[in-house]
Amino acid sequence: MAEAITPRSQDFAQWYTDVIQRAELADYAPVRGCMVIRPYGYTLWENIQKALDRRFKETGHQNAYFPLFIPYSFIQKEAEHVEGFSPQLAVVTHGGGEKLEEPLIVRPTSEAIIGHLYSKWIKSYRDLPVLINQWCNVVRWEMRTRLFLRTTEFLWQEGHTAHATYEEAEEEARLILDLYADFAENEAAIPVVKGYKSESEKFPGALVSYTIEGMMGDRRALQMGTSHNLGQNFARAFDIQYLDRSNQLQYCWTTSWGVSTRMVGAIIMTHGDDQGLILPPRLAPIQVIIIPIYKNEEEKAQVMEATDRVKAALGSSVRWHVDDREAYTVGWKFNEWELRGVPLRIELGPRDVANKQVIVARRDLPGKEGKQAIPETALPQVVDTLLAEIQAHLFQKAFQFREAHTQQPIDYTAFKAAVENGFALAFWCGDAACEKAIQEETRATNRCIPLAQTAEARGRTCIRCGQPAKEQAVFARAY
Amino acid sequence: MAEAITPRSQDFAQWYTDVIQRAELADYAPVRGCMVIRPYGYTLWENIQKALDRRFKETGHQNAYFPLFIPYSFIQKEAEHVEGFSPQLAVVTHGGGEKLEEPLIVRPTSEAIIGHLYSKWIKSYRDLPVLINQWCNVVRWEMRTRLFLRTTEFLWQEGHTAHATYEEAEEEARLILDLYADFAENEAAIPVVKGYKSESEKFPGALVSYTIEGMMGDRRALQMGTSHNLGQNFARAFDIQYLDRSNQLQYCWTTSWGVSTRMVGAIIMTHGDDQGLILPPRLAPIQVIIIPIYKNEEEKAQVMEATDRVKAALGSSVRWHVDDREAYTVGWKFNEWELRGVPLRIELGPRDVANKQVIVARRDLPGKEGKQAIPETALPQVVDTLLAEIQAHLFQKAFQFREAHTQQPIDYTAFKAAVENGFALAFWCGDAACEKAIQEETRATNRCIPLAQTAEARGRTCIRCGQPAKEQAVFARAY
Repeated sequence: MAEAITPRSQDFAQWYTDVIQRAELADYAPVRGCMVIRPYGYTLWENIQKALDRRFKETGHQNAYFPLFIPYSFIQKEAEHVEGFSPQLAVVTHGGGEKLEEPLIVRPTSEAIIGHLYSKWIKSYRDLPVLINQWCNVVRWEMRTRLFLRTTEFLWQEGHTAHATYEEAEEEARLILDLYADFAENEAAIPVVKGYKSESEKFPGALVSYTIEGMMGDRRALQMGTSHNLGQNFARAFDIQYLDRSNQLQYCWTTSWGVSTRMVGAIIMTHGDDQGLILPPRLAPIQVIIIPIYKNEEEKAQVMEATDRVKAALGSSVRWHVDDREAYTVGWKFNEWELRGVPLRIELGPRDVANKQVIVARRDLPGKEGKQAIPETALPQVVDTLLAEIQAHLFQKAFQFREAHTQQPIDYTAFKAAVENGFALAFWCGDAACEKAIQEETRATNRCIPLAQTAEARGRTCIRCGQPAKEQAVFARAY
Repeated sequence: MAEAITPRSQDFAQWYTDVIQRAELADYAPVRGCMVIRPYGYTLWENIQKALDRRFKETGHQNAYFPLFIPYSFIQKEAEHVEGFSPQLAVVTHGGGEKLEEPLIVRPTSEAIIGHLYSKWIKSYRDLPVLINQWCNVVRWEMRTRLFLRTTEFLWQEGHTAHATYEEAEEEARLILDLYADFAENEAAIPVVKGYKSESEKFPGALVSYTIEGMMGDRRALQMGTSHNLGQNFARAFDIQYLDRSNQLQYCWTTSWGVSTRMVGAIIMTHGDDQGLILPPRLAPIQVIIIPIYKNEEEKAQVMEATDRVKAALGSSVRWHVDDREAYTVGWKFNEWELRGVPLRIELGPRDVANKQVIVARRDLPGKEGKQAIPETALPQVVDTLLAEIQAHLFQKAFQFREAHTQQPIDYTAFKAAVENGFALAFWCGDAACEKAIQEETRATNRCIPLAQTAEARGRTCIRCGQPAKEQAVFARAY
């Protein structure tokens, strides 16, 4: 029997760590705050990458690669940026056995180095827009780390674009926000709130930071991707200028946006249950686990022959895997692949072979409800349909869960109760001091100001201070 | 008119740098020895990655990700390994504003950190083999750098496998050698010599280092990929043990292997000419450049309509791009896409439209020889055929070039002449001192001992010292 995981209902944080390690998604590295992404977790990340990368390329972006090391002086050029990142930097002081004249920082994000190169590459309006993305590792020295959610080194993609006008930069930032939301909802099956960050929560140096926020299984919020309209701040700091059509020098308008391996954490925490992971079919490394069941050599011959027919029927239309290891019992395998979150299980025993059928079991529906016998001949179609149903069901379940735990409190007492229990969608004054007080009093932060406001602010008051309201915001305890 | 590049025939090194910058493959970074890979160069790298990654997965390997930072003490555990890499290390001494208790090194390669984790993951023979690869960045502090060929930071893949027996590790190392050679010859169109390194040239800590060596356009050798049988050296240093079938603890046998962004340099230097790059169709970011030609609005309407038909005919079977920019002349575009090495050009003018034809021009054949008119209706098939012909022709040309510049010298005088002019395949004694003397006297290094020896060593003598010969080796000046 495999080592048991802590039930999610008992201790969410411990369940999270247990699942990651037992499912072999990741492991701790010998360097504090760093992680190793194991093959099962990395394949999930590769599927995330493919789904995002396809969307980036369809919208005209190209990939490139910028250096890991950034001269210390570069990061100091944008005032808010250096203030935001200074406490988190890893610094290289020695190279090739000698002390460096100028220390190098390991990129925490690449606005500075990319800004430097854009200033060199961009000369004319004909060079615009520049639409570049890179997939890479970044390092931010973190005090409290958690696998996938907050690690000293993490993998991500960072898009960096340059435009001729404010409008184009704003359009780009919004396009990416929509792209991220589409990915989250249709690939990861996680409903998200699209919004923008308050002044105190936005990216250091940005004009506007758009964000997608999801609700995890413990009802806390997770920021799952951000898209920043940087205005001309970085263009001025790094001298990114172009000659416009009337031959005048103008500063560019830039954006940056990113999604990281944190997305893996979001998938685990949104869909998982006491038995372990539940992976959305569109991203699952293995969509269908096939388990042949037999007691003797005669049965084995029949069952393995049927297994070959099933494999041929499924072909390359789905990602399937046959677990034919003889060192493990059928019961152990059922538990193992449930823990690993494989959306669909196909069982094949002698009685099924005799009936020319297979038993199909859904990971997202418990016991008998998710189990059915289907004729071998119906195989590829029924599997396709079931995978689509599971994908839709996971999204629906997560959506209903979020709706059930989102409240619109009428006063601060109700607000405090709401953030104990999930999201509070509340009117607020827009003042940073009030926002900070809310955090100190309730441990809830301002996650975002939703783009879709459900009511007008006119005539409303701030949930905490009673001053005239500026808009609605989502407050929640967050990762 | 675009800035001209130095002709290859005039100054190979300058041509190389010019081509990379003018074709926008890469640029220098503000940190010494580092480079930026621009979208055109990165798309080429992505195509290299896809072709290799498919081969890795087909042979049972999975991707994972290990940390960038390695505790300094780890790299010291394997004696030859630390000696080999110490002078090249970049060291992080500060993190999060504080001095670190133990400095961290930025990985120059990951045997040490991966060895540590394998010792934790591998318990029984049932866990073997472990077949893992990672795509990542590595850092080696280099004194003399050259874009793609030798940079302080570079991108690569590094495979790390663990096995139960010597035989299995050896089989893996050879499998990967063959896989690399297959990739080089059939995707990059570069003929390679498969061999193994001499004792003094092998990877620090390896039992045997296999290599593929190519001949560049200046007749110098380039090491294009290596595959190491590490024996039990790293398993002993990092305590990677497993319980065998009779419940005895055994050390694993490990391998490691890698191909880097240097491969881009190999492609440039093998196929390019005075006009710029020539990219092998299977890896080219753009396989077909379509250039509409017109003088007035009436012609434009006709030509653009025909262009749409051509695009539809080609569909997604090839990677095509239409250059319909009006700010540039047709002549400029021809030069530009020749410089960027696009294998095939389609020209579409009013006369072609009238004749329901297109003009197709091959990048690998000069002037009229590579140009033909083909009927629109023949389009997708003829393009497919031509791309295959170009791919084969590039390989043949490179193969003949290498053969023409490989000699089997009969004495040391002839040897010296041979290495001035290309490869010398010569018998040698196998002694490191003699090998070093050859290098000092001729600037040629021992590239490898070819697996396919063309003659027996018995009765032969060393090309330099006259002692009995051990085997044939390829000597050449190298990058």
